[in-house]
Amino acid sequence: MQPRSCANYRAEHFLWEVSDGVATITLNRPERKNPLTFDSYAELRDLFRDLAYADDVEVVIVRGAGGNFCSGGDVHEIIGPLTQMDMVQLLAFTRMTGDLVKAMRGCRQPIISAIEGICAGAGAIIAMASDLRFASDTAKVAFLFTRVGLAGCDMGACAILPRLIGHGRASELLYTGRVMTATEGERWGFHNSLSSDPYGAAQQAASAIAAGPNFAHSMTKTMLEQEWNMSIGQAIEAEAQAQAICMQTRDFERAYHAFANKQQPQFEGD
Amino acid sequence: MQPRSCANYRAEHFLWEVSDGVATITLNRPERKNPLTFDSYAELRDLFRDLAYADDVEVVIVRGAGGNFCSGGDVHEIIGPLTQMDMVQLLAFTRMTGDLVKAMRGCRQPIISAIEGICAGAGAIIAMASDLRFASDTAKVAFLFTRVGLAGCDMGACAILPRLIGHGRASELLYTGRVMTATEGERWGFHNSLSSDPYGAAQQAASAIAAGPNFAHSMTKTMLEQEWNMSIGQAIEAEAQAQAICMQTRDFERAYHAFANKQQPQFEGD
Amino acid sequence: MQPRSCANYRAEHFLWEVSDGVATITLNRPERKNPLTFDSYAELRDLFRDLAYADDVEVVIVRGAGGNFCSGGDVHEIIGPLTQMDMVQLLAFTRMTGDLVKAMRGCRQPIISAIEGICAGAGAIIAMASDLRFASDTAKVAFLFTRVGLAGCDMGACAILPRLIGHGRASELLYTGRVMTATEGERWGFHNSLSSDPYGAAQQAASAIAAGPNFAHSMTKTMLEQEWNMSIGQAIEAEAQAQAICMQTRDFERAYHAFANKQQPQFEGD
Repeated sequence: MQPRSCANYRAEHFLWEVSDGVATITLNRPERKNPLTFDSYAELRDLFRDLAYADDVEVVIVRGAGGNFCSGGDVHEIIGPLTQMDMVQLLAFTRMTGDLVKAMRGCRQPIISAIEGICAGAGAIIAMASDLRFASDTAKVAFLFTRVGLAGCDMGACAILPRLIGHGRASELLYTGRVMTATEGERWGFHNSLSSDPYGAAQQAASAIAAGPNFAHSMTKTMLEQEWNMSIGQAIEAEAQAQAICMQTRDFERAYHAFANKQQPQFEGD
Repeated sequence: MQPRSCANYRAEHFLWEVSDGVATITLNRPERKNPLTFDSYAELRDLFRDLAYADDVEVVIVRGAGGNFCSGGDVHEIIGPLTQMDMVQLLAFTRMTGDLVKAMRGCRQPIISAIEGICAGAGAIIAMASDLRFASDTAKVAFLFTRVGLAGCDMGACAILPRLIGHGRASELLYTGRVMTATEGERWGFHNSLSSDPYGAAQQAASAIAAGPNFAHSMTKTMLEQEWNMSIGQAIEAEAQAQAICMQTRDFERAYHAFANKQQPQFEGD
Repeated sequence: MQPRSCANYRAEHFLWEVSDGVATITLNRPERKNPLTFDSYAELRDLFRDLAYADDVEVVIVRGAGGNFCSGGDVHEIIGPLTQMDMVQLLAFTRMTGDLVKAMRGCRQPIISAIEGICAGAGAIIAMASDLRFASDTAKVAFLFTRVGLAGCDMGACAILPRLIGHGRASELLYTGRVMTATEGERWGFHNSLSSDPYGAAQQAASAIAAGPNFAHSMTKTMLEQEWNMSIGQAIEAEAQAQAICMQTRDFERAYHAFANKQQPQFEGD
């Protein structure tokens, strides 16, 4: 089975660069705070789907250009057209946006969001659907679907947000659409940390994770997903199988030999 | 289908008033810190069941009279009789109390508890089963079932409380029956905020939510419930369908047109 | 049905003492920070399985000797041999370790970990699988499987840890293997409290819980487990049944009569 290369992917609707196994997606319409369009949604979905098979990207960072993360679905390019659609078209749209989250949760690479400024609507969802979030003090995260007349249940928010910050806090954000401040976000467990340079923090974490063991990291990601709604008994059996698989990797042997020789292990991903 | 009116409901075992779509339930036996009786349990259950069909109430506030929220099941009027019952009668009672929580989670209106003073036993459960909780510094929340020889598993506490405050903290409260202080409650995510006037805070939040979009708010409530134990993939598909439905409401169009004209949207609930 | 006695159990691979219904397991290889071996894993699993049927132990405390909790699986006695095993043997091992967690969650006694110093790998798992955790400022908890080339999905960590501290924080710990400091642990809900004497705090909590009602406490433990991935509706019905059972215990009557006579109830566990 031929692995797929994503390192040399040429992105159309955002910036994409890869260095030492760490890919960075930069949403890049800074004059409008990096809104999403039908095209950028679809390209992101397809890229995360391809990443599942890529062997030259180990971690993905998502950020926005110009001091903001993402303002969500563009009002003129998305909201306007949606008001004209029939149900078949609407469901095709909501399934496409949902498929972006499924692809982010389904790819084998941990995803890290570096969040400054506005992080709203679908932008907040992209942050939420990431594995880790590093933010600056300016980060304003808002699940503001209610502000445009919609429900808080968008792209998995009613399932995922409560598991990040607790059910009561998530309920408030989803019913009111209000901003979660950076301080609240860290205190509640949405942001992993705050700093003046969240992209730097994301790069540091990404490099550490990309150093491996990458087969094992992918298994961690898979199992965090798989065990979401298993019983504890089922989860323990699932982990017994998954970890036994990881114990047959050479990276496990490498770590043991390095440890026995008082050295740092060098992981190679197999 | 004829919607049901609840605005003019005449309550027997508590106070009920409705203003601008916001209903307030006041538990009103302040001399005993507002305990519940068989009758008030049943009336609350029936009212929340009716609210599911009501079109003239958009948000419900629950509070207690006289500086306390609710002291739980009355010792003389409930605990005493329970010690005399056979299993068939006991199960009828525990199912009735559970049905109150089901009705609170199942009605279409967000429920906000305004909590001062004692909030114990079934009172703590009513707070827990609400969507939002605003408390004062005097709030003392205690899941004290263990103090009367019972288990912490009452009316859904072992399922819901861990999702609000984390599994370890919930375990401590349920095994010990100890008071969760107001400060702990806010820090742990049980209370959405603390203030000297929790009823005022609840009214403010209720008015904001009652301004709509109310069809969408009801969908948010439904989906927070529906997705409780779905996989992420199932949740995302469920939200794709639910949000597509909301995109066919006129409130969605109203928001778009208001936004395009740089105005505040006026929601009408359809 | 003859209940089993565990009070007089003679442990081989750790210390075991029982006083007033409170058992203490002391992992006791302090010169190596109390690592686990194949033998101690198996003995712990068997002991927790037996405890399910014991009528002379009501609460279990787990601690480590010499200022550390547990350094996890011994590198020489466990990791080394694992690198030589085939898949059948590996799965037998991961299932045995998983069975320890299943036995800890499945026994009827609440388990309290008293945590000082190093609490790493399988040690962190034992703490995580406990019902309550009391720690000192020196506690360093690390789910460091990734450091030995393995995945974070070990013995239920991807299922249980997110429910204790939130999904985003758990993800960071499992991808990086980094230490969770004592302060973070308390702030995030892993530790129930910090103090200079966590074993003393654990003993105090254990005594309070062991004073009963113990039949009800066991039901609380069972239901926290049972309702892990039920819907809210299913959980409420399950609790209606479980609590109705508890209402037929004499401890429930004892509490009522004590309360009516303004006395402290004396629970007897039936």
